[in-house]
Amino acid sequence: MTLEGVETLDAGVVPRVARAREPRVVRVALAGCGVVGGELLRILKHGEARLAARNGLRFEVVRVLARTAGRPRPDELPEGVLTTDLDAFLAAEAELVVEAIGGVDPAVRIARTALAAGRRVVTANKALVAAHGPELAALARQSGTRIDFEGAVAGGVPIVRALRDSLPLTGVRSIRGVLNGTSNYVLTRLAEGRSYADALARAQAAGFAEADPSRDVSGEDAADKIRILAWLAFGVAPERLPVRRRGIAPGADRLAADAAALRGVVRLVAECAQTAEGVVASVEPVVVGPGSELGRTRNEDNAVLVESDWNGRVCLAGPGAGGGPTASALLADMVRGAQRQPPPTQRRGVQDRRPHRWAVSVEAGPGAAEALRRALDRAGVPVAGEPLRGGSLARTAPVAWPRVDLATRALTAEGRRPLVSRVER
Amino acid sequence: MTLEGVETLDAGVVPRVARAREPRVVRVALAGCGVVGGELLRILKHGEARLAARNGLRFEVVRVLARTAGRPRPDELPEGVLTTDLDAFLAAEAELVVEAIGGVDPAVRIARTALAAGRRVVTANKALVAAHGPELAALARQSGTRIDFEGAVAGGVPIVRALRDSLPLTGVRSIRGVLNGTSNYVLTRLAEGRSYADALARAQAAGFAEADPSRDVSGEDAADKIRILAWLAFGVAPERLPVRRRGIAPGADRLAADAAALRGVVRLVAECAQTAEGVVASVEPVVVGPGSELGRTRNEDNAVLVESDWNGRVCLAGPGAGGGPTASALLADMVRGAQRQPPPTQRRGVQDRRPHRWAVSVEAGPGAAEALRRALDRAGVPVAGEPLRGGSLARTAPVAWPRVDLATRALTAEGRRPLVSRVER
Repeated sequence: MTLEGVETLDAGVVPRVARAREPRVVRVALAGCGVVGGELLRILKHGEARLAARNGLRFEVVRVLARTAGRPRPDELPEGVLTTDLDAFLAAEAELVVEAIGGVDPAVRIARTALAAGRRVVTANKALVAAHGPELAALARQSGTRIDFEGAVAGGVPIVRALRDSLPLTGVRSIRGVLNGTSNYVLTRLAEGRSYADALARAQAAGFAEADPSRDVSGEDAADKIRILAWLAFGVAPERLPVRRRGIAPGADRLAADAAALRGVVRLVAECAQTAEGVVASVEPVVVGPGSELGRTRNEDNAVLVESDWNGRVCLAGPGAGGGPTASALLADMVRGAQRQPPPTQRRGVQDRRPHRWAVSVEAGPGAAEALRRALDRAGVPVAGEPLRGGSLARTAPVAWPRVDLATRALTAEGRRPLVSRVER
Repeated sequence: MTLEGVETLDAGVVPRVARAREPRVVRVALAGCGVVGGELLRILKHGEARLAARNGLRFEVVRVLARTAGRPRPDELPEGVLTTDLDAFLAAEAELVVEAIGGVDPAVRIARTALAAGRRVVTANKALVAAHGPELAALARQSGTRIDFEGAVAGGVPIVRALRDSLPLTGVRSIRGVLNGTSNYVLTRLAEGRSYADALARAQAAGFAEADPSRDVSGEDAADKIRILAWLAFGVAPERLPVRRRGIAPGADRLAADAAALRGVVRLVAECAQTAEGVVASVEPVVVGPGSELGRTRNEDNAVLVESDWNGRVCLAGPGAGGGPTASALLADMVRGAQRQPPPTQRRGVQDRRPHRWAVSVEAGPGAAEALRRALDRAGVPVAGEPLRGGSLARTAPVAWPRVDLATRALTAEGRRPLVSRVER
């Protein structure tokens, strides 16, 4: 596939086109106009100037497929592009098809038809990729195009890209993580003493749990995701990888109580690992330490730990669910292949004049407390709370650096050897 | 730039070449044969089959530049390729130049000469990129080639790629993190009560602190890195970005004591942020909570937090220093542009038969303890420690899943509603 006006598709090479040229228009067909699809339309609108300046691209959404015609639609939906007719959607003249409709069918029909026609496909659909990933990748290869799916695993955490591009070269031994935001939100609430029913209702009210959360709490959603990661890291067919799977329901309340009795917290952990016998995978409740990386992963956040021979242990964590993060991942895939060299450098850097809190100390000794107090006072630095360590350590109220700098210069001139830390606790 | 036999350079597109073809040979000139360069030679040797199968590449190291001829060299150094003559190195016929020599000069001469000749450059040199990044990127653009520098920031943590490819599209507001492994190692030891001198000696003995650690402890190294990240995220010229900079020395012992007096720990935090006035940047000691993301970043690890409009907060953490992680980052850049679609799926997935520890519980009630004990006993599941909660919750010694499964099936048949968690604490 060659993009007109761009000499190479390589992600970082700067095309030889002049920067001032008009952005290249990419015609997009978007399947799905729910939480994720709607958010994508908003980001495209909001980021239009940035996409043009940074990536030399303008995405023109020419067709949007919705399951039903009736629902309220985002304001950003262009006039006259909405359809509920799958065949009309598939016939749209678009070089890029974004699939945000979820579920295996009709998503797999959409992906197959688009790829067979040489169109590029971007999807956030884990069920689709776990069930048909290798087939669709092969189809893309035959058609000289590609399928990308960053949003299918861990929302806004760029784990798919990391596993496709760089980490496998380091000799991956295992991948484990919290990959289902809904379950993790529920488990976080349970550890706070709430009931399962209450926790689930809150997750639904917050908008990231489906009306039917059964694929989340059963571990099926996380199993799809770990299958995809095992495919990328180890080359096993995701649809044929056996996953030992138990979810958090029924019995979530007791699982949380069991973990508490062991002085831990329960997390729904997805894991795949290379063993002497082959690649193994599981999704199951695991009791972890409250201070461990997975124990500290709270609410709808996801976290992925990758252990490898040459690269030790890398952790990627962040928002695993929600329209914004998933739509961001879709957008990152949409601009794949377009210009994304380090940006031009016209923007200016300035001195930081934001107020921060600081800790200022001087060497203990005769007159130290008096000297510190006086220097801060003269520089107009407000002190917060009582001085510590006999007056040789003071905390400040929020104040911009130049004033603190003034005080430290005065103290240095007096031979008091001042030290300053910013305080963020 | 076009790679022979590969139809497109795009990172994820599968080239139409048959998989069975011989790997494409890429001639590499490597500048630097110290900790990082030596480790890269080891990884190339060790990963040769994987690179051929997965990426269709074979890297042939045709010339290696060393500062001095005398030092012991890694066994993996090919015969007759070592030179100490810069001009002889620059004249090497290589399509890819890997710069692992460090410092600005002669690194900048090597990079300029290579790029001007249309050769691709991969470097882990933060001082070089912070001082000359935009100039070298422009030169690469003019020559139709590219420069990559994943290893320049945070070693094996793929933050450069994330910021080049995906995260900027999400509307980045700020980036902050621990970017200097040596300082962080020293600060970790100080918090344990060791002296600065002792901590530094340990870092040097562990091999990741330079003989002259002044650029590390002064914050200059972290300043170079935050300049590079500010360039990628915000498009400011790294060499012209003012960075408010204070290091951890002199005075590291007192900084640690000050933080302890505030019930925190001190970290050398690098930060850049978009403000109304422009982009600001700093490197300075910051007192953070011991349980915060940066407070928990220990030893030579690095951690980077990216906050953005659409994507919330993403954390990438892992080994920030050392030969293996940095060489891994170089290798990831070296294969950029080569085939790296999801791998073929011939590998097999198997059932997990590794021993794990488990927590098994049944519903409390008459006979519960006896039923649990009996079921575990009959299935041959060894119990560890005393039973909990009146006998309705038991921990096991390490045992493979099938036995536990047997016990739970028996308990289910008895109507005891068993629940199982894996235990990792």
